[in-house]
Amino acid sequence: MPAEPSPFVPERRVGVGLLGCGHVGGALVEVVREQGDQIAAATGIRLEIVKVAVRNLSKQRAVAISGGLLTHDAHGVVADPSVDLVVELIGGIEPARSLVAEALKAAKPVVTANKELLANVGGELQALAHHAGVPLLFEAAVAGAIPLVRALQVSLAGERIRRVVGIVNGTTNYVLSQMALERIDYGEAVAEAQRLGYAERDPAADVEGYDASSKAAILASIAFNAEIVAGDVYREGIEQVTLADIDFAHRLGYEVKLLAVAERVGAGDAKIAVRVHPTMLPASHPLAGVRGPFNAVFVEGEAAGELMLYGRGAGGRPTASAVLGDVLDAARRLGAPHQATVPRNAAVSISPIDELRTQYYLTVDVQDRSGVLASVAAVFGHHDVSIQSMEQIERDGKARLVFITHVAKEADVQATIAELTSLEAVERVGGLLRVLGGER
Amino acid sequence: MPAEPSPFVPERRVGVGLLGCGHVGGALVEVVREQGDQIAAATGIRLEIVKVAVRNLSKQRAVAISGGLLTHDAHGVVADPSVDLVVELIGGIEPARSLVAEALKAAKPVVTANKELLANVGGELQALAHHAGVPLLFEAAVAGAIPLVRALQVSLAGERIRRVVGIVNGTTNYVLSQMALERIDYGEAVAEAQRLGYAERDPAADVEGYDASSKAAILASIAFNAEIVAGDVYREGIEQVTLADIDFAHRLGYEVKLLAVAERVGAGDAKIAVRVHPTMLPASHPLAGVRGPFNAVFVEGEAAGELMLYGRGAGGRPTASAVLGDVLDAARRLGAPHQATVPRNAAVSISPIDELRTQYYLTVDVQDRSGVLASVAAVFGHHDVSIQSMEQIERDGKARLVFITHVAKEADVQATIAELTSLEAVERVGGLLRVLGGER
Repeated sequence: MPAEPSPFVPERRVGVGLLGCGHVGGALVEVVREQGDQIAAATGIRLEIVKVAVRNLSKQRAVAISGGLLTHDAHGVVADPSVDLVVELIGGIEPARSLVAEALKAAKPVVTANKELLANVGGELQALAHHAGVPLLFEAAVAGAIPLVRALQVSLAGERIRRVVGIVNGTTNYVLSQMALERIDYGEAVAEAQRLGYAERDPAADVEGYDASSKAAILASIAFNAEIVAGDVYREGIEQVTLADIDFAHRLGYEVKLLAVAERVGAGDAKIAVRVHPTMLPASHPLAGVRGPFNAVFVEGEAAGELMLYGRGAGGRPTASAVLGDVLDAARRLGAPHQATVPRNAAVSISPIDELRTQYYLTVDVQDRSGVLASVAAVFGHHDVSIQSMEQIERDGKARLVFITHVAKEADVQATIAELTSLEAVERVGGLLRVLGGER
Repeated sequence: MPAEPSPFVPERRVGVGLLGCGHVGGALVEVVREQGDQIAAATGIRLEIVKVAVRNLSKQRAVAISGGLLTHDAHGVVADPSVDLVVELIGGIEPARSLVAEALKAAKPVVTANKELLANVGGELQALAHHAGVPLLFEAAVAGAIPLVRALQVSLAGERIRRVVGIVNGTTNYVLSQMALERIDYGEAVAEAQRLGYAERDPAADVEGYDASSKAAILASIAFNAEIVAGDVYREGIEQVTLADIDFAHRLGYEVKLLAVAERVGAGDAKIAVRVHPTMLPASHPLAGVRGPFNAVFVEGEAAGELMLYGRGAGGRPTASAVLGDVLDAARRLGAPHQATVPRNAAVSISPIDELRTQYYLTVDVQDRSGVLASVAAVFGHHDVSIQSMEQIERDGKARLVFITHVAKEADVQATIAELTSLEAVERVGGLLRVLGGER
């Protein structure tokens, strides 16, 4: 039964122009159809999707869209006077950048789920939005349905955030979870993820950490009120993580996760570190239990303490839900002066990865003969990297040395690895994992 | 280093009138002092706490407040022309209700952390706020620092929410966690919670579920756009939960948690069930890992899927962080017409607890003689309550029968318990726990 029409709120029609109609766009059309009456009753806003710009007019779509709505002309959708706000779901930088800029210049609010756009040219678009006095909203761009962006920008607007740590890529989280649960190796887990639709046929953008890096840049920008772009993010993917590493981590009470980390470095507000890499996370950490395709973001604030937001980070309907929340937020504010755009703190600089200080896990495959351990240990010593624990595993007449270091500096660890690699008795240095919570 | 003053945003002074200055009020004064420059640089809003109404002017406070700010006259604070918005942290219904009403009638936005106020007279205050066109914000009233209210009201505004399940009382969660972890009984765990400041000297409001009921009413109201008051919530506390129940639950793969559950019942939107009671929750559920004084709320939406928000549900600084987020949100919108108040769906009715259908755990202490089990089992049969599993535990020459039922109707289970209690061979029926996820 639909909600009673409210006596207080006269119904107001808001015209939505949709750019792109793939999985998320189709789901948005579907959810607006399902929930339109309910939304109108609750908010007084009658959403109407008046134009949908697509590349291929004749493509079969999961959701039926009347032919009159579909058009090739995305610029025409933005300019159409019946379009009050624009939803950009094309993805990528161009033509999304030009279209979003056109909409903002015409003082039309924009809702986007486009992480690449924001992580590369978000600053210029925010400035346009600020100048026009209209919102540019992107709840769906970082973690799908998880209401994270608004939490950071509004609820935590007065909070000094120390660190944001996220599992923001469902594909890699699924792959690592499956390796651990099913005891399968990386290749098998990726193949399974592809079969189930959690990974693309070319999984590089996910497994190499590019997707997570874009999201890390957006997270860092809003958490620290700074303009941080994807290129600022140190990035490693999960391709080198082995089942043996995961097993070893488990024995020590850790899980292995691809984490996006954005944190303040040092006492002031001037330095920020932003990085994406496979990480050893204590099993007791709330993020350690986040499995399969789920995402979660953990926030450490000075007054709020520890917060975590968890949910579906991808998928048509979850992403459409976040887009729809933004559309309604923008629709409610149509015509009112908008001041929510946060200016950027230009004084922030990026702390290079070389300056990271944490504990490290790494493996060194060596020839199994006397004296090798001593020479390997000596290399750690040369570079001031102190060893917390070492375990030797014999396999096929070969030996693998598994190290956990005390807190060390990244540059020193990298120098250690370089020197180890040059030793004649060392066959391979692998499995570098940084430890979260190992910084103290 | 403070952020650079932004060239875009001229600084705007916003006068805050504070009603009440206990733990949360003191922490708010402190956080505004710490973060004021940063906030002004980032948002252009210079918060100034211009008046603080307290009961006792000469009380020692953790935070120094200049004598000129303090006053007995709360009504005067509301009326003061230098007060642009009012923060109500008095708690309880009167005089908070009158003061909040006065502020709203004077078109001053109100931020409150007062769950009793909202759970009892929230509807009338929302109507006043709507009429005046100013916001009444209460992020801190439900789950402390967790940015939940805004998530439900704004981010999920277009979402059809099916169910909200929360751990919303830190005291009871701490007590149940400690019973399980330390293997201590209820009385010991409560005493420890009192010692550590997690429980009041009189813990009734927490352990009997009153605090959670108020929060459940607020959650249900915002999730289902309905006016639901504390009196609508079915309530049971944790006083009857024993270590033996928790042990048994663990063996079956469950945790015992005091949950606030608000859910749609049946196919339409017309019926809502709202309840607070100790619950058996599958150990794999994301809420099962929420330990100690932490809170978390799990949301099941039709498009968004499963979401969880986790964090500190109480404490001065975490609560002050949520209040501050609301203050900034209201400050930013000062002077702009406000339309965010959601009208209530008057068609919603409350589904009585008797109509609940789920699985049940209960224990029956019986005399240890032949034929007793058969007569006990027969009682379940009379009332159409089908038994999924039964275990008999011998203790001190007595027998305890531990039952898990198949999905049954609450009214039938209650009738079963009443008849069992009347049997001569039954000494006690105890430990009733409803199973979450046992509804299917």
